Amino acid sequence: MTQIGFVGLGRMGGNMVARIRRDSDHDVVAYDRDAATVERVAAATGARGADSLEGLVGKLDAPRMVWIMVPAGAPTQDTVDELATLLEAGDLIVDGGNSKWTDDRARAAVLAERGIDYVDVGTSGGVWGLEVGYCMMVGGPGPAVTRLAPILDVLAPETKPDARDALGDRGWGHFGDSGAGHYVKMVHNGIEYGLMQAYAEGFDLFDKSEFELDNAKIAHLWNQGSVVRSWLCELAARAFELEGSDLQELSGYTADSGEGRWTIEDAIDKDVPTPVITASLYARFYSRGNGDFTHRMLAALRAQFGGHATKKSADG
Amino acid sequence: MTQIGFVGLGRMGGNMVARIRRDSDHDVVAYDRDAATVERVAAATGARGADSLEGLVGKLDAPRMVWIMVPAGAPTQDTVDELATLLEAGDLIVDGGNSKWTDDRARAAVLAERGIDYVDVGTSGGVWGLEVGYCMMVGGPGPAVTRLAPILDVLAPETKPDARDALGDRGWGHFGDSGAGHYVKMVHNGIEYGLMQAYAEGFDLFDKSEFELDNAKIAHLWNQGSVVRSWLCELAARAFELEGSDLQELSGYTADSGEGRWTIEDAIDKDVPTPVITASLYARFYSRGNGDFTHRMLAALRAQFGGHATKKSADG
Repeated sequence: MTQIGFVGLGRMGGNMVARIRRDSDHDVVAYDRDAATVERVAAATGARGADSLEGLVGKLDAPRMVWIMVPAGAPTQDTVDELATLLEAGDLIVDGGNSKWTDDRARAAVLAERGIDYVDVGTSGGVWGLEVGYCMMVGGPGPAVTRLAPILDVLAPETKPDARDALGDRGWGHFGDSGAGHYVKMVHNGIEYGLMQAYAEGFDLFDKSEFELDNAKIAHLWNQGSVVRSWLCELAARAFELEGSDLQELSGYTADSGEGRWTIEDAIDKDVPTPVITASLYARFYSRGNGDFTHRMLAALRAQFGGHATKKSADG
Repeated sequence: MTQIGFVGLGRMGGNMVARIRRDSDHDVVAYDRDAATVERVAAATGARGADSLEGLVGKLDAPRMVWIMVPAGAPTQDTVDELATLLEAGDLIVDGGNSKWTDDRARAAVLAERGIDYVDVGTSGGVWGLEVGYCMMVGGPGPAVTRLAPILDVLAPETKPDARDALGDRGWGHFGDSGAGHYVKMVHNGIEYGLMQAYAEGFDLFDKSEFELDNAKIAHLWNQGSVVRSWLCELAARAFELEGSDLQELSGYTADSGEGRWTIEDAIDKDVPTPVITASLYARFYSRGNGDFTHRMLAALRAQFGGHATKKSADG
């Protein structure tokens, strides 16, 4: 039996608490700034609820472990800062969110001065994690990771037997010092952008094809032994089945969580050409209607040198 | 029991004959222009060997089916042309190779004048197909595809149960008239280029990282529940395990089979932006040392406007 505090009971954090409680006898103290959420999660999972960070820390036995699962950026940093004043030497803070790996390094250094350990966990798996398990990329000092291992073991998927069984990992991996977990997760997301864009471009061709193609049927077939079979291709099959081949009801506006930007930043820093990951991020910018000035300027220049007709926009 | 002739017993054709013979009682007449290969495949699989196309046709009962599995382009076209003179009305030619879908349309029209059916099959699965089965994308007239179905059933993987079971397909799919099979396969390969390039760029960052990362461990972990899990990611884990994290023994020269080019051609024809698939093909061009003149010209221009130093190449 391991004890852990959980801060942030949103879609990810709430499901993680549910998985821990469902599949182990670990003791979870759960806090969210929304009191109703705490009550709901506690009732559903048997976690003990807390009504403040201070209350959460008070319900944990030293040395404590607290897993933070709140949005990256200020919400995570504020939580780390407040916890740092409440925790004591020997305690351990885990950031399971999407922090930038360079922030992890800065945080770990500050916390180390107070004797508090810090472990960064990049978490993939989305809303499917509750059932499938979460793929977790971990950075931080070895002893702290070892302490956290029983929690990671429950959150991770059952390891799929394959050629790499000899590694003996358990659906999570420890990749190095502070920041290594979020670094590997950041690049994971950059790759994810590229994979998504590659599928999307291909199916866009099918949408414009002279053949009457059933996209769900194609995506489904490709998962039967083809080279492009993947979990994303399975999700594509589900999406087309649900939304139809033309996805007509969907808006194309595609957000990004920042990790693609950081991946490209890192690529520029290291002189590594990443045309596909970069083009994938830019495609998302286009999807939001950005690039409009570029397009008007292209039209303007074309008119200048060739006298090509330009269209006035509808309202101008 | 279905009877089929097989032309071309290379890595793909030979394995397909082996899978058909291993998993069914179908009667296969096998021909390759290399007589020793015919002998070997016949001995290993129980297929009946033929020493010429004419011999192969002579050993088949009308109405005949002949599956061509030779390199795309002239070798396939020559085989189709010769078979057209040997076969008769009611017979069926199958092209299981990587032909361009527009060639299929032309061929089907020519063969139709002689009453010979033509089915195009885009085949994915590579050297793993013998064990896993081949993912096949099929185009051509419905009755001809129905006739071929018993062969496709044996070559296809056991259908994986998933949300799309309702489709009732069997690890192969019929997508429309002549050319539809190779068209879907062509775009499949374009997507494949993009997926491969996305992974490659991400792992290139790992190679340059300040963390000491084990690429095999990362690729392996990502197959445990992450969003980027895929068959290509499983192959990446195997490759890193075999070759080491730095792939130092490998040459980076990457060929292409033409399908990426055709995908981009089609994208241009239909005004569909495909930046990722295009960049992936160009990355392969770079991998062959192309772009060298571009680079020298960049250096020359930079020297002109800014007086920046240029490096003379070692031998010039």
